[in-house]
Amino acid sequence: MLTAHKIKVFQSLDKKKFRQKYNLFLVEGNKIIQELKHSSYKIQEIFSIQPEDLSFPETEIHPITERELKKISFLQTPKDSVAVVELPSPEMLEQQKIQIILDGIQDPGNLGTIIRLADWFGIEQVICSQDTVDVYNPKVIQSTKGSFARINVVYTDLTEYLAKTDAVNIGTDMVGENIYHFDFPEKFNLILGNEGNGMRPEVEKLVSQNITIPRFGQKQSTESLNVSMATGIILGQIFSKI
Amino acid sequence: MLTAHKIKVFQSLDKKKFRQKYNLFLVEGNKIIQELKHSSYKIQEIFSIQPEDLSFPETEIHPITERELKKISFLQTPKDSVAVVELPSPEMLEQQKIQIILDGIQDPGNLGTIIRLADWFGIEQVICSQDTVDVYNPKVIQSTKGSFARINVVYTDLTEYLAKTDAVNIGTDMVGENIYHFDFPEKFNLILGNEGNGMRPEVEKLVSQNITIPRFGQKQSTESLNVSMATGIILGQIFSKI
Repeated sequence: MLTAHKIKVFQSLDKKKFRQKYNLFLVEGNKIIQELKHSSYKIQEIFSIQPEDLSFPETEIHPITERELKKISFLQTPKDSVAVVELPSPEMLEQQKIQIILDGIQDPGNLGTIIRLADWFGIEQVICSQDTVDVYNPKVIQSTKGSFARINVVYTDLTEYLAKTDAVNIGTDMVGENIYHFDFPEKFNLILGNEGNGMRPEVEKLVSQNITIPRFGQKQSTESLNVSMATGIILGQIFSKI
Repeated sequence: MLTAHKIKVFQSLDKKKFRQKYNLFLVEGNKIIQELKHSSYKIQEIFSIQPEDLSFPETEIHPITERELKKISFLQTPKDSVAVVELPSPEMLEQQKIQIILDGIQDPGNLGTIIRLADWFGIEQVICSQDTVDVYNPKVIQSTKGSFARINVVYTDLTEYLAKTDAVNIGTDMVGENIYHFDFPEKFNLILGNEGNGMRPEVEKLVSQNITIPRFGQKQSTESLNVSMATGIILGQIFSKI
């Protein structure tokens, strides 16, 4: 049942502090919720205005009204269902051939889009600085379109991690080697920096090589690409050579 | 002065009907407004909480309060200024070497991002179907980050246009020739379809060749990329060969 207490708890889950306190996060929409089936995520319960569209034989699915759904949804236009999912504590996988490293990404949509790109290109691990936006933030979860369930997203001290890795650390910047001429090494970490400030100096020091996307527009053209778009274009280029 | 009547007019400019009625649209934020300097757009007047940051000697800049700004801004977090700009009627340029064609793009963020990409890659013309979201929609304008001022965005009957063009019409789809193996012709129209439904059948009939971005993830990976991300990855690939 959707008690007043539960409503209060769920409403607090847009804050990391409360996700950690209750050890829970929310996933909205049957389409994304279905993706959890093939994952190790544990759904505690589901609240739905269309319970018949979901098939989770081992999970309790509570029918609710649209009014109730509005109370627990973080979406401007709530979808059909809200799943209450246990917060996992993913462990770092061993160094992968290609990893995405995020240094201070703040925008939930950017993190979500980058996770979706990782999924498309078959990159299994995304390693984030401690101050990167939390993957279980409801806006991130929704913008991954379900890809979060297939990608190992971990948070760590980046300078420590990058100092001891046996892969090549490749930074991205407005100045660097043209991605079209760059020979990507066998095993590397692709580092993307904060939306406004780029990589922090301590991280930049651990970079072997910076790469850049050449601009073809005229001088007055747009100054930069959004970080998730840059990630997509660079990944597209990396995989053109594989 | 910011009269009650003006406030009412400006507030209506999120709708195409009223933009056309008053022949006006709004541009928000000094950074984007400055970009209009190098363009043929005509600014009627500017309302600003920081008029000293703007240098438009020939334009009237009205100082306003934050409260007044909130009334005329379409942004959740209003920026410093709102410029009232005359709605232009851009004419179609002659066929360019590479053109982006949009068939029914609905999301303002997608159109804005695609215009920003056109600007980055130096593509001068974006041709939209009549039912594509309007470029002067405030959400589109803001998400172009000012690139709208440098790209010729026109609306036309696509089937008519694509039938008579002397360039090769290249469609984008989930099935098609791998972009990494495709030889882009000398002169082509790159066609992107609606977010949910892709290109409409009448447009598909006029396509010489469909291309696709190969997915490297496992079977259960994300079904598709967002249309603006797909545009970025494809343009990245096209320009790798130039």
